[in-house]
Amino acid sequence: MSKPLRVAIAGLGTVGGGTAKLLHENAALIAQRAGRVVELVAVGARNPNKVRIADVSGAEWVTDVMQLADRSDIDVVVELIGGAEGIAYDLCSRALMRGKSVVTANKAMIATHGAALARMAQDHGGHLLFEAAVAGGIPVLKTLREALAGNRILSVRGILNGTCNYILTRMDREGSAFDAVLADAQKLGYAEADPSADIDGLDAAHKIAILASLCFGVAPDLQAVTRRGLRDLTPTDFHYAAELGYKIKLIGSARLSVQGLAQSVEPCLVPLSSPLAQTDDVLNAVEIQGDAVGALFLRGRGAGSAATASAVVGDLVDLARGCAACCWSAPSQDLQGSHPLAPKDREGRWYIRIHAHDQPGVLSLISGILGKENISIESALQHGRDGGQDFVPIILTTHETNLAAMQMAVERLEGLACVCARPYILKIESDSF
Amino acid sequence: MSKPLRVAIAGLGTVGGGTAKLLHENAALIAQRAGRVVELVAVGARNPNKVRIADVSGAEWVTDVMQLADRSDIDVVVELIGGAEGIAYDLCSRALMRGKSVVTANKAMIATHGAALARMAQDHGGHLLFEAAVAGGIPVLKTLREALAGNRILSVRGILNGTCNYILTRMDREGSAFDAVLADAQKLGYAEADPSADIDGLDAAHKIAILASLCFGVAPDLQAVTRRGLRDLTPTDFHYAAELGYKIKLIGSARLSVQGLAQSVEPCLVPLSSPLAQTDDVLNAVEIQGDAVGALFLRGRGAGSAATASAVVGDLVDLARGCAACCWSAPSQDLQGSHPLAPKDREGRWYIRIHAHDQPGVLSLISGILGKENISIESALQHGRDGGQDFVPIILTTHETNLAAMQMAVERLEGLACVCARPYILKIESDSF
Repeated sequence: MSKPLRVAIAGLGTVGGGTAKLLHENAALIAQRAGRVVELVAVGARNPNKVRIADVSGAEWVTDVMQLADRSDIDVVVELIGGAEGIAYDLCSRALMRGKSVVTANKAMIATHGAALARMAQDHGGHLLFEAAVAGGIPVLKTLREALAGNRILSVRGILNGTCNYILTRMDREGSAFDAVLADAQKLGYAEADPSADIDGLDAAHKIAILASLCFGVAPDLQAVTRRGLRDLTPTDFHYAAELGYKIKLIGSARLSVQGLAQSVEPCLVPLSSPLAQTDDVLNAVEIQGDAVGALFLRGRGAGSAATASAVVGDLVDLARGCAACCWSAPSQDLQGSHPLAPKDREGRWYIRIHAHDQPGVLSLISGILGKENISIESALQHGRDGGQDFVPIILTTHETNLAAMQMAVERLEGLACVCARPYILKIESDSF
Repeated sequence: MSKPLRVAIAGLGTVGGGTAKLLHENAALIAQRAGRVVELVAVGARNPNKVRIADVSGAEWVTDVMQLADRSDIDVVVELIGGAEGIAYDLCSRALMRGKSVVTANKAMIATHGAALARMAQDHGGHLLFEAAVAGGIPVLKTLREALAGNRILSVRGILNGTCNYILTRMDREGSAFDAVLADAQKLGYAEADPSADIDGLDAAHKIAILASLCFGVAPDLQAVTRRGLRDLTPTDFHYAAELGYKIKLIGSARLSVQGLAQSVEPCLVPLSSPLAQTDDVLNAVEIQGDAVGALFLRGRGAGSAATASAVVGDLVDLARGCAACCWSAPSQDLQGSHPLAPKDREGRWYIRIHAHDQPGVLSLISGILGKENISIESALQHGRDGGQDFVPIILTTHETNLAAMQMAVERLEGLACVCARPYILKIESDSF
């Protein structure tokens, strides 16, 4: 058996601790599969006295993690500190410049600096791997980069944020309001004290930027991801979505067409028959469409200590075997610009929720405005007024049209005297895509 | 860019033709991802004049495929002829002995000779890859071997035969009899003229033997796979399964316990809420349970020209990148015997269909026999008699018990005067496993 792969872990939180634990508990199995021992040489974290989930007594403690980049007795730095910039980026870039390999779960850093870091790895003979950065334990990056290497990828979409999926699942099951479910999720530890990165879609946007890069050979381009979060969803939306045969899910999506690359994260209506609609609670799922493979669907745990550690250790075993491919689907100098599709040109079917005064002729006014924008209505739902409210929800779904027309229609609808609030629209995902 | 990877394809049927087509159509993309050109140097098939789905005019034709093993201008032989023995085995073993790499979709050969062939690859410096042998376009072998290398695998189960799944889906939807659906499937090209390998579970058994080997580090052991096919299923079973909240699926399963390794292929009742139950028509699906990752679910096309070619080309790109790991999860000399669990010790919940004469006291007699075998009944269904039949179906489901007790109960039930035919049992799969 070859000499050990010498690993240092920087950051011993949930994922770092889980990784140390997994390397320890399954050491024999990992050594057999990797063909050599994967040895945890050092761990770096600010406070060595904090209680940890893993026994790291066999490894050296360092409190200045930057040291890990310089030491000659370390082959791989596992960066599990987090944050797009700061110490995580400094550590990774320094380690790569020293010819070491880096494994990370840091989606913010990879979505922002992934192409530059890949270039450092190429130029200095190390490797950069980040399976854990997207969808936790689901091996979607390896699948795209390796298993589907023969395919032209047509599109990718998925449920990429467990916190949002948990909130949406509870809103759906309980008919509760967003704020109440969020507060409870925070109490239970499913949502952060500052939940913005999750519920405003930024975390999922990082992931879709990374997926789009692997699918389409472009440099990750976070700025090109159109993004809307959960804050404007109401129980009314869940009620009518169900009546129409849909669930509401936060969908990250990237799709290449001749007009450009569309990347988005937003709540969408997903048909009940779709496996995405059946992905509940904190689970993640990804659906890939390739020209040869057709539709491939993957579902599993997108976060959590052990599942994320599973992905980190998978990367380490690849490095131990000498099996790490180029981390994007091309050398970083060959990555293209993303040529984003203008958001207004996004085509789709749409759901519109309109709060209107319950008076004669309202539906005719509304449908008239849509008609002028050349938007064809697929279905219209209007039920009786809820007790105490001075408006009724009118729910419309449309046939295929572009977002520009929808936005124009929303403007004009809002201007009607009978409409009490800005209409809210959601994209309707198709079953097959 | 490095020099090309020189490939020969032996067998230009559905999969061979699809592979040649994909290599041709996506050549530029594949070269970029592989870091070198993947060049089709030669193709071998008996009849060069047969119409083919792919343009192979750039490759040399050979009618004696054994030549491909010997030629010094070929790095990889892609074996797509099929059959556990004969020319496929002769070609692969000869190519491996010559130090070439082999990529194959041949599940029968790998389930039978996989350990020996891996040894030849090891000893002569080539690689053996066979992603396309299990579940077509779903990268389940790569996932087990690489992505989940940090996990102790607890169990794997799946829908591994598209023909059977197509037949079962139609029996379920239409309430039709097995023979009628099979005949129609043959007419439509979904089932072979000799359907036995599919409908009697042999094809799925090959696949579960391969999966079990990768999961548990044992040599593939086809003989250890308990196997039952579809022939005894009746519309009654689908009717009552639905009433009980299940679908009937042919499930391949491997699970390790302290008592031994249980490997089986058989029709099972699968809860409607399980993603396996939602896998219809010709789709395949695999669910893996790992100690770190938890449950991971993969679904996609398990057969067909393009999806299988996707898997073959994925293997070729791994070879081109120099990224082929040991094809099992350990060097072949380290693969263990499979220590099979005795079939009688298999634990589970069971469905029993009993055809009994409709007379007083029958249910009491039947439940008395189960009670004597210590089998606890979970539910019992008995509806009115169908017009014209002199018996009624009585459907029971049990709590957890072992197969030995169930088999003893079936014997004793068959001996009752009021029971008109041998009772038929099906295993009930749990939602999470």
